[in-house]
Amino acid sequence: MARRWRFAGSYPEVKLKCRICGSKAEVHLRSHNIALCREDFVKFFERRLLRTVRRFRMFGHQDRVLVAVSGGKDSLGLLHALKKLGYKVAGYHIYLDIDGYSERSLERVEAFARMEEVEIRVEGVEEALGCTIVEASEKLRRPICSLCGTVKRYLMNRAAEEFDVLATGHNLDDEAATLLGNLLHWQEGYLERQGPVLKEGDGFRRKVKPLSFTAEYETAVYAFLEGIDYIVEECPYARGATSIFYKDVLGRIEEKMPGTKIRFLGGFYKFRGEHLKPMDVPLRLCTMCGYPTTGEVCNFCKLKERLNSRTTESEQYISKK
Amino acid sequence: MARRWRFAGSYPEVKLKCRICGSKAEVHLRSHNIALCREDFVKFFERRLLRTVRRFRMFGHQDRVLVAVSGGKDSLGLLHALKKLGYKVAGYHIYLDIDGYSERSLERVEAFARMEEVEIRVEGVEEALGCTIVEASEKLRRPICSLCGTVKRYLMNRAAEEFDVLATGHNLDDEAATLLGNLLHWQEGYLERQGPVLKEGDGFRRKVKPLSFTAEYETAVYAFLEGIDYIVEECPYARGATSIFYKDVLGRIEEKMPGTKIRFLGGFYKFRGEHLKPMDVPLRLCTMCGYPTTGEVCNFCKLKERLNSRTTESEQYISKK
Repeated sequence: MARRWRFAGSYPEVKLKCRICGSKAEVHLRSHNIALCREDFVKFFERRLLRTVRRFRMFGHQDRVLVAVSGGKDSLGLLHALKKLGYKVAGYHIYLDIDGYSERSLERVEAFARMEEVEIRVEGVEEALGCTIVEASEKLRRPICSLCGTVKRYLMNRAAEEFDVLATGHNLDDEAATLLGNLLHWQEGYLERQGPVLKEGDGFRRKVKPLSFTAEYETAVYAFLEGIDYIVEECPYARGATSIFYKDVLGRIEEKMPGTKIRFLGGFYKFRGEHLKPMDVPLRLCTMCGYPTTGEVCNFCKLKERLNSRTTESEQYISKK
Repeated sequence: MARRWRFAGSYPEVKLKCRICGSKAEVHLRSHNIALCREDFVKFFERRLLRTVRRFRMFGHQDRVLVAVSGGKDSLGLLHALKKLGYKVAGYHIYLDIDGYSERSLERVEAFARMEEVEIRVEGVEEALGCTIVEASEKLRRPICSLCGTVKRYLMNRAAEEFDVLATGHNLDDEAATLLGNLLHWQEGYLERQGPVLKEGDGFRRKVKPLSFTAEYETAVYAFLEGIDYIVEECPYARGATSIFYKDVLGRIEEKMPGTKIRFLGGFYKFRGEHLKPMDVPLRLCTMCGYPTTGEVCNFCKLKERLNSRTTESEQYISKK
């Protein structure tokens, strides 16, 4: 039976049967070498999620979990599945104000919240930062993606304060691509910290990635089968990003050697546990906003400060003219 | 100037100048972001080789170095360069008896020995093993490449006995591809041992790879510029090999981010030195041939034994008939 599945690609007329119930299979997972019907795929997906949550002691049924949602398949699928599995969840969406992309994302997030009757808090970057990400990037001449990362990280940590755990929708493809990049450049600091769980401490909530072992293909199929209306387009500024290139490279490897991605990531976690000890970086409180930081002022407040001084400078320049 | 070189690919009309002497450049090394004329490239190549030999304390001018040569650009280029740099070298070629490929390789090796007036010893697999690699593979139903590796390793170690060091022509592309494979599957044992130098001990000579930091493109250009007539074709059994696929993947990454391969490998050696300690595996002497091995009988003798028993079985079978 397994042998026939392997050849399914070459002989499209071969009917695949669900490994569990024997009915017509509709999802073929080459990396696991199984084919499943719709119902059994959904069960498979949720069981894997549950196993990851338990194995890495991410959270329990009594914890309040804040799920960061972008409006895409991974994060909405995660929020949906965790709610279905009986966890205490709420969503959190950051409105980035990027062209039409942010409006379309927000629409999906709001529709999802109504449909699923789940609370999703929305926070705007402009409110918190004083201007949009794109404006900040122009003013400071810094790449949008790095600024966006700093701002999102800060806002997510702050929003998670009222909760026990912060969960994000990073999937296997995201994590494997990050790992490949960190290995190609031997970013030791990142390698030490990359994992499905970033421990709580020093004022930060625990951060978890329950979809770390679930491929992007699977989250897309799950969201589709569960009737989630998610945003398919990527952020327009992510085009040509290195992370997408690494995903592409790993996709080619996976195509030739199914199962490589999951073994690559799983093997790394085992290796890391044995050989790498994350350094303890002592944190103190940001003198401006009171948030935990390694320096005196946190990155977000530094950003705000520089934006303010820029504004003042240009205003002075204009008034002089 | 550096800025113009970067764009040389897109604007072919731009004339590159040699970074050293200012004359017309003919070799553009994107990973080092330099362009060089023929003479300065040859000097660059040999200086890098010398620096690698010295930095990793591979050997000195008093050591007798046996260079394993296949007939390809890397190994013949290495033997040529080391001789030119004044090292005491001899070559060693294993005649594999693979279709026409082995004859053509041997021809180049013999022509090279005559041209360069360097001693190259030739040893045939059939003499040592009792049959060819292809025959052994058919008899034992084992993949040719794995058998060939075992046999070559054994013969090279044995041939190196009269020398101080054994050098092979593995280049940056080979080493980076091996590293990528070992990381994708987290082969810890291999990761611990992979390096430009494998220490001597327990009856084995030191093994070194002086071209570890020299890209395949550079060895090809060097061999061409130095007038070495090498065999371009790959072993016919290597087609579709995983190592070639990994090289291809890394080639794509290098294309987009020049310099990645060398940083990937160099960063790994630094990381390995800090985090991985190779396990000491106690060796004893093979009870059949007296060679160092981890078990009772070395892999080569096991192979020979199995081949003999197979022959006897089939002879018995035929005589019974």
